[in-house]
Amino acid sequence: MPSTPRYRQIAEHYLQAIRADALQPGDRLPSLRELMQLHGVSLSTALQVCRTLESEGWAEARERSGYFVTRPRRLKIVPMDEPATDRAPDPAQFVGIHEKVSAFVTQRRAHAVHLNLSTARGAPALYPAEAMRNAVTRALRQHPELLTQATPSRERTPFREAVAQRAVRVGMALSPEEVLPTHGCIEALNLALRAVAQPGDTVAVESPTFYGLLQVLETLGMRALEIPTSPQTGLSIEALELAIAAYRDIKAVVVVPHLQNPLGSVMPDAHKARLAALCEQHGMALIEDDTYSELLDAPAPARALKSFDRSGNIIHCASLHKVLAPGLRLGWINAGRWQARVEMLKYAQSRSNEALAQWAAGGFMASGGYDRHLKQLRASLRTQRERTAEAITQHFPPGTRLNLPPGGLQLWVELPRQLSSVAVFDAALREHILVAPGTLFSNTTRCDHYVRINCGLPWTPALEAGLRRLGEIVCAQYAAGAVRAAA
Amino acid sequence: MPSTPRYRQIAEHYLQAIRADALQPGDRLPSLRELMQLHGVSLSTALQVCRTLESEGWAEARERSGYFVTRPRRLKIVPMDEPATDRAPDPAQFVGIHEKVSAFVTQRRAHAVHLNLSTARGAPALYPAEAMRNAVTRALRQHPELLTQATPSRERTPFREAVAQRAVRVGMALSPEEVLPTHGCIEALNLALRAVAQPGDTVAVESPTFYGLLQVLETLGMRALEIPTSPQTGLSIEALELAIAAYRDIKAVVVVPHLQNPLGSVMPDAHKARLAALCEQHGMALIEDDTYSELLDAPAPARALKSFDRSGNIIHCASLHKVLAPGLRLGWINAGRWQARVEMLKYAQSRSNEALAQWAAGGFMASGGYDRHLKQLRASLRTQRERTAEAITQHFPPGTRLNLPPGGLQLWVELPRQLSSVAVFDAALREHILVAPGTLFSNTTRCDHYVRINCGLPWTPALEAGLRRLGEIVCAQYAAGAVRAAA
Ligand SMILES: Cc1ncc(COP(=O)(O)O)c(C=O)c1O
Ligand SMILES: Cc1ncc(COP(=O)(O)O)c(C=O)c1O
Repeated sequence: MPSTPRYRQIAEHYLQAIRADALQPGDRLPSLRELMQLHGVSLSTALQVCRTLESEGWAEARERSGYFVTRPRRLKIVPMDEPATDRAPDPAQFVGIHEKVSAFVTQRRAHAVHLNLSTARGAPALYPAEAMRNAVTRALRQHPELLTQATPSRERTPFREAVAQRAVRVGMALSPEEVLPTHGCIEALNLALRAVAQPGDTVAVESPTFYGLLQVLETLGMRALEIPTSPQTGLSIEALELAIAAYRDIKAVVVVPHLQNPLGSVMPDAHKARLAALCEQHGMALIEDDTYSELLDAPAPARALKSFDRSGNIIHCASLHKVLAPGLRLGWINAGRWQARVEMLKYAQSRSNEALAQWAAGGFMASGGYDRHLKQLRASLRTQRERTAEAITQHFPPGTRLNLPPGGLQLWVELPRQLSSVAVFDAALREHILVAPGTLFSNTTRCDHYVRINCGLPWTPALEAGLRRLGEIVCAQYAAGAVRAAA
Repeated sequence: MPSTPRYRQIAEHYLQAIRADALQPGDRLPSLRELMQLHGVSLSTALQVCRTLESEGWAEARERSGYFVTRPRRLKIVPMDEPATDRAPDPAQFVGIHEKVSAFVTQRRAHAVHLNLSTARGAPALYPAEAMRNAVTRALRQHPELLTQATPSRERTPFREAVAQRAVRVGMALSPEEVLPTHGCIEALNLALRAVAQPGDTVAVESPTFYGLLQVLETLGMRALEIPTSPQTGLSIEALELAIAAYRDIKAVVVVPHLQNPLGSVMPDAHKARLAALCEQHGMALIEDDTYSELLDAPAPARALKSFDRSGNIIHCASLHKVLAPGLRLGWINAGRWQARVEMLKYAQSRSNEALAQWAAGGFMASGGYDRHLKQLRASLRTQRERTAEAITQHFPPGTRLNLPPGGLQLWVELPRQLSSVAVFDAALREHILVAPGTLFSNTTRCDHYVRINCGLPWTPALEAGLRRLGEIVCAQYAAGAVRAAA
């Protein structure tokens, strides 16, 4: 874990004083000169201390008279820091997610949940239930034997055709036969990893990343090497370069270039090009998890990472689960030069996907209805993200930070550093509110003071009240921490 | 590989003479006494020689005057031998099925197939398409959000309930929650193996076995140890005991107790009890693949192997794919004491199965329609198996042997030993007929002169003509072999 930077340590020192009421609203903070002398730091570090306190809502600058302690009513959204990327990842990062997840699951099952903010999923109301039902009925009318005839693995289904057609918009040229349907993106990721790596091999992943991927790696006996990842631009390519120098045996890199889970980051095209070239140069397979790109709120769709592929080195995985129908297990994979191997693994693992879902979803995707649905879904999610971010800003304790991502289903929220997301999880669950603790998003401890909050639920007074209550719970933990610190 | 028994070698000697026209129909064969002297064998071996030639249609006994060469018009079904079980399996049996399968697939794709006898599947006409369509429509009407709401992994679906209820009839007591839906039996087998064994571990399987299982083991990096298996009673428990003594590290045993693929064997209950005890005693997990038991043509359903479980050591896997709807990928697993681990692996591999298929299939299974369908399916398959067996007996060369299994979708046919199933496969494919060559059912060469013939197609003049043509192709290979032998 990168150590805490000096300016942050100093800022924490003043925060503790504020929390312990040693410094109170209206009190003057040391001047820049005083800070430099007191802590033996440069002007720029002293300035960073003040700006940090200010941006986190604990201080305000008054013209010509310096910084004063403040306790703001209402915060602006405070963005997160960029990760430190100047050192190779720590090999101690190779340990178990299963234990954490099963502790989480066991506990969850022991409580009634009234407000579930822990998923990365939209509410059913956001998806076109009736249109999909009609698509199923139509498919069965047109193909009466869909349920009683096995689907040949090379069958050119409407789903494969629709995926191939839409792939063109994001820079990929795939024939329908090259689109292999899978049981969700998660099966695609399993197949991709099994095709390119063996048990014991090391795979680079974003940090934080969704626990599903850490679980897949753990069940396959592969080692996750966590690479620092920017909440804005995604995987740090510099950090990956450092990791390559330190670990020569990285077999593959898995990234979510668009609306990364949990960060919401979007990788700029220039990064995609660099990443594609870097992986090719070092003989590492590059696996693109494109689960969320259709939720990107942008004037034009983002180019797939796979569109930067020159040699079949990029494997593209995606799914309809978050964008069209959470009730379907329908994803797909194109595995570049590993396609034949992935076809074989897919056959051995679960055979061809069912035809019915492929006919129904493919039929809907080929209609104008799909793009209309996506547009509406993106608009609903935008509102929900904004409202949720506002509620968090309003109700969570000062020091809380988050980014407002340009799309997607969730917010990644950094709590004041001294808070434990597991304690917040426990306290919230006792009040029937479920959040995803940051501990699940890394094999390290670096996310222990984060929570992931789902924004897939339509905005209602009940949701608003739930978020307020969650804020109170977090504030109570915060106050308890302050009391402990003062004692 | 067990060596050819002496009586068989001697019988082959006379068969060669007959094929080479050195002995012709009507010629007298040596007497028993002459055979004993000529070949230095006992009376019982000499008798076995004559009986073999007779049972395979090459000789007939005439009252008081001995055996004479004959060339019968029409053969009776000639059953196969029991396997030799008196030696531990050969470690050379650890080699690759993928190569064979991909050669097979590549070749198949290069030809138009007019008659596909290679699958283990029923024709769509054998399954209740309309009832299943109605079940889907009804499920969507009753649960409008089935497609747009994710299925919680613990959801008590009608499918889980129906499976749990039917399990009672075959001696299993499972709650619906303990029935974990999977994408077919093949996913269940993958999960079972991943739960109990690691890459590099040895797993005992029946020999012959369906190539799907050999593929799963190969993709998981596990070693298949092939145990001799009776065409009547299934896995030889004596042979397994020998294997245990020779290989102390067998982690699991996989068996298909009912209508084994390809043999069609059915394991007697006494064997099931012994096998369950043996596995428990030696700390080997016992995996039951119960894909076909609903196709068993018997007055009462067969007791599940799992019903002999005393300690959670037996994993039960099954599927609707062959019995209700080949268009669905709906199977299930109960993993005994590995259930929690299998749930975790299933989540990491493909998440919960879709709800729609579970509501539709579960709805139909709970109705009287399911048992009526199964009864009708069994009756249709019985006729088809019998007709196919007759056609093979009539059109295939003498020396062909097969068992008529008490249910199921296929016949396992032993060709005269000098024939190659790959050559038969090639020649048949050139005439657009697809069969499954025996080479696919073992990592050894012991099945190279077998073919598996599907009986899932309704009997039609075209099918009859196809089987006749296939017989001619096999006879031509046989004649060519005879010419070579004579030259
Ligand atoms: C980045 C990412 N990839 C894959 C998945 C799994 O997707 P699916 O449900 O299509 O298997 C998720 C679900 O949380 C995800 O967040
Ligand atoms: C014995 C056996 N088990 C499992 C399978 C695979 O079953 P499913 O299609 O349900 O995955 C087959 C299919 O050929 C089989 O013969």
